[in-house]
Amino acid sequence: MTIEKLLVANRGEIALRIMRTAREMGIQTVAIYSEADRNALHVRYADEAVYVGPAPSSESYLRADIIIDVCKQLNVDAIHPGYGFLSENANFARLVREAGLLFIGPSPESIEVMGSKLAAKAAVATYNIPMVPGTPSAITDRSEAKIISAKIGYPILIKASAGGGGKGMRVVESEADFDEQMDRAVSEAQSAFGDGSVFIEKYVTSPRHVEIQVLGDQHGNIIHLFERECSVQRRHQKVVEEAPSAILTPEIRDAMGRAAVDVARACGYYGAGTVEFIVNDKLDFYFLEMNTRLQVEHPVTEQITGVDLVKQMIYIAEGKPLAIRQEDLEIKGHAVEVRVYAEDPANNFLPDVGTLDTYVRPQGNGVRVDDGFEQGMAIPIYYDPMIAKLITYGDSREEAIQKMIRAIDEYQISGVQTTLPFCRFVMEHDAFRSGQFDTGFVSKYFTPDKLTPAPDVAESELAAVLAAYLLNNTRPNAGRTQQNGENIQVTTQKSNWKANRLR
Amino acid sequence: MTIEKLLVANRGEIALRIMRTAREMGIQTVAIYSEADRNALHVRYADEAVYVGPAPSSESYLRADIIIDVCKQLNVDAIHPGYGFLSENANFARLVREAGLLFIGPSPESIEVMGSKLAAKAAVATYNIPMVPGTPSAITDRSEAKIISAKIGYPILIKASAGGGGKGMRVVESEADFDEQMDRAVSEAQSAFGDGSVFIEKYVTSPRHVEIQVLGDQHGNIIHLFERECSVQRRHQKVVEEAPSAILTPEIRDAMGRAAVDVARACGYYGAGTVEFIVNDKLDFYFLEMNTRLQVEHPVTEQITGVDLVKQMIYIAEGKPLAIRQEDLEIKGHAVEVRVYAEDPANNFLPDVGTLDTYVRPQGNGVRVDDGFEQGMAIPIYYDPMIAKLITYGDSREEAIQKMIRAIDEYQISGVQTTLPFCRFVMEHDAFRSGQFDTGFVSKYFTPDKLTPAPDVAESELAAVLAAYLLNNTRPNAGRTQQNGENIQVTTQKSNWKANRLR
Repeated sequence: MTIEKLLVANRGEIALRIMRTAREMGIQTVAIYSEADRNALHVRYADEAVYVGPAPSSESYLRADIIIDVCKQLNVDAIHPGYGFLSENANFARLVREAGLLFIGPSPESIEVMGSKLAAKAAVATYNIPMVPGTPSAITDRSEAKIISAKIGYPILIKASAGGGGKGMRVVESEADFDEQMDRAVSEAQSAFGDGSVFIEKYVTSPRHVEIQVLGDQHGNIIHLFERECSVQRRHQKVVEEAPSAILTPEIRDAMGRAAVDVARACGYYGAGTVEFIVNDKLDFYFLEMNTRLQVEHPVTEQITGVDLVKQMIYIAEGKPLAIRQEDLEIKGHAVEVRVYAEDPANNFLPDVGTLDTYVRPQGNGVRVDDGFEQGMAIPIYYDPMIAKLITYGDSREEAIQKMIRAIDEYQISGVQTTLPFCRFVMEHDAFRSGQFDTGFVSKYFTPDKLTPAPDVAESELAAVLAAYLLNNTRPNAGRTQQNGENIQVTTQKSNWKANRLR
Repeated sequence: MTIEKLLVANRGEIALRIMRTAREMGIQTVAIYSEADRNALHVRYADEAVYVGPAPSSESYLRADIIIDVCKQLNVDAIHPGYGFLSENANFARLVREAGLLFIGPSPESIEVMGSKLAAKAAVATYNIPMVPGTPSAITDRSEAKIISAKIGYPILIKASAGGGGKGMRVVESEADFDEQMDRAVSEAQSAFGDGSVFIEKYVTSPRHVEIQVLGDQHGNIIHLFERECSVQRRHQKVVEEAPSAILTPEIRDAMGRAAVDVARACGYYGAGTVEFIVNDKLDFYFLEMNTRLQVEHPVTEQITGVDLVKQMIYIAEGKPLAIRQEDLEIKGHAVEVRVYAEDPANNFLPDVGTLDTYVRPQGNGVRVDDGFEQGMAIPIYYDPMIAKLITYGDSREEAIQKMIRAIDEYQISGVQTTLPFCRFVMEHDAFRSGQFDTGFVSKYFTPDKLTPAPDVAESELAAVLAAYLLNNTRPNAGRTQQNGENIQVTTQKSNWKANRLR
């Protein structure tokens, strides 16, 4: 079938990003919004917009029943869930299917299998997928778990079966700490996921997080679109991503790609998905988990392959066979993404929501900004405080990084503190530049004093005076002076341009 | 040598575009500005900015003496002239060299040779470059010219030797019209260029304008970066460009590329240059002229090759050998550019300068905007009324065009009329979509009634009311109604989003 009307069950940048592709494909778009998002860009961008409930997600963006009802009333053909919210909710995918609508994503069965780390491991067992050594299922017997841990060798990792985002995860350095860490992990897992079951894995030293993008259609064709390097993380949250990885060899890239396709095949996958691997310092890679949705960091893959992933997701949901063959794909150039959060990097990354008094995006060759805000908008306290994803693209990794630094400097945001100065720190750090870093990058290298200091007051004041001159057309007529052979008057502009983004 | 400080002897979007690359390369930037550009973005973007004179170009942007003096006083290493202004002025290039500065462009000698159509033809004579049949030099004897014209076959074209932009150019349909058209051509050439010499060429039927981008270093290496199709023109002014061309075969592309490299070699060319060809309906191609500067439409080449042309120009001026080999280059995807002018397409494209009351750029995957304005700025009457270049990039021509239509719809401009509705007309036209068009596209197909009509008043008013609801948070609480099982309230958004860009 052909989708004529699409509801995007999401908000912010990802809702806009999906609608842009839908519009390019001639598909009508429907937005939903909560009380907090009445003025949001995704609401204004859509052809139709429907209010679905109060600000808390549980009363709006997570209300499967309301969303499906809206679709029926507006003759919507399909729902794109974006990421987060209902995107990996197998029950929602099932309800959508039962309502006769297309879910732009995999089958509920695939979501279910990959939603449980242990079920996922069981599903891929018949394939030759490298896995981190560990217990094959949730731990029932502690003394047996200790024997296994000793065999694997400390340090080991205790992980929640239902986990994600680092919750319920504990490192155990030696057997002496085992019981204490196990108690903590179980209790964290119980409170975070309502499920206290945990399992054990070898702790990988100097680990890198590298993931493979896959696309599968409903006819059994599965391809991969190379890797994304996501090792720069803060509290298990990705903050900088890039494609390709600076360290993979073509052989390892190929082996990881084939492993990712096998993982997808193991759960009868269709749609866009991401197979996450952990890579150690010897470039051994191990399957971690599969995310059964569009990732936040998908743009870097789009930039290096030229493939619009949302467009492919829509085609796949419509039942079309993949038109891209593995051999058609090649990596062209290099892309980097930084996540711009309304957080204060000088103050332990505390959220700093407020109003975007100034908001001017960087422009130009090789710069892409995916966001959901404009100047004057407030960042709602109810949702993830991500303002934008800033993506740069160049012929080489070095060029993409140089463009990123330029773009960060050009981004003018005032009214809230942002992670832009932190992102600049990463871009300029020797370890990042060399490609030799792991998931410990932030804790190992970053302290707030590493941030480029704001211009001092005198300099800021000078900038303000100069800005006033500029705006009021009262700048001294330097050119005349010069034409008389005297010294010309020059305005130093740099701090001026940047002044706006510093409070 | 390594350039540490660069003066950009230009304004607007091209000044910004050059400074962005300079900043990425760690090069300090100096802007110059006229009275009319005190508040311009390029002035604020530069590290230093110098006022050089009153608004008319002859008193500011064309003042070679002042510009070179500024360079000396500020210890500038190099000058990038952009396009227009002093960019193809051999005398300026010579003065720059004599002042011990680097000119980011070719040698004065190359500029001089290619600045005269007849000298250019003479220079390439030893190479096997296809040329439109015609007189080898300026016409001195009318009766001999008539004999040649009869031999070539009518229609023929009379062109000014010093010409460009269609000035001093006349089509002669038959010998009966020869004298009258010749008189007009000579008189136009005299008044436009102060030089009445003209020559004769075969008039090519159904002509397309296809140009080849070349890059040469100071060590004799010259490569080409494929073609740009620039046939959609209005009064000999390009308005839509794309790369690659929809009609070239790989064999013809290769032949044209080799011819362009030969043209560059014939004049000892280094820097970025463009060799223009005319292509007929049988795909025969003929050399027209070489532009010895960065072109307005260079971004489409950057998008399909991944090569930053300004960066390469800077490297070449520094004396570095080209790091890109011909065999490294390949076309990846497709790019389209439209020029957004402050002109009224419904009123014979009359300039409509004024203030950009609303100015919101399109965003997202595959969209690049090169401009020199922001909301609230006035468009000066003294210069070309181009507001922006809107470039889209996709995996295929169709995808790039779809993105362009989406981006045009997303562009919000009020306060001036713009050519955006005209650009949308081109994008949607069957002839453009099919790739079967020539330089007569606009005169053949466009009339103002073809523009998509603005929403009627009732619709605009509805949009305004809805916008007010959105902004004042007073929209009826549709979700509540819906949860009670009644009909939901839906806001139709499309005209709302677009309302801003219609006066």
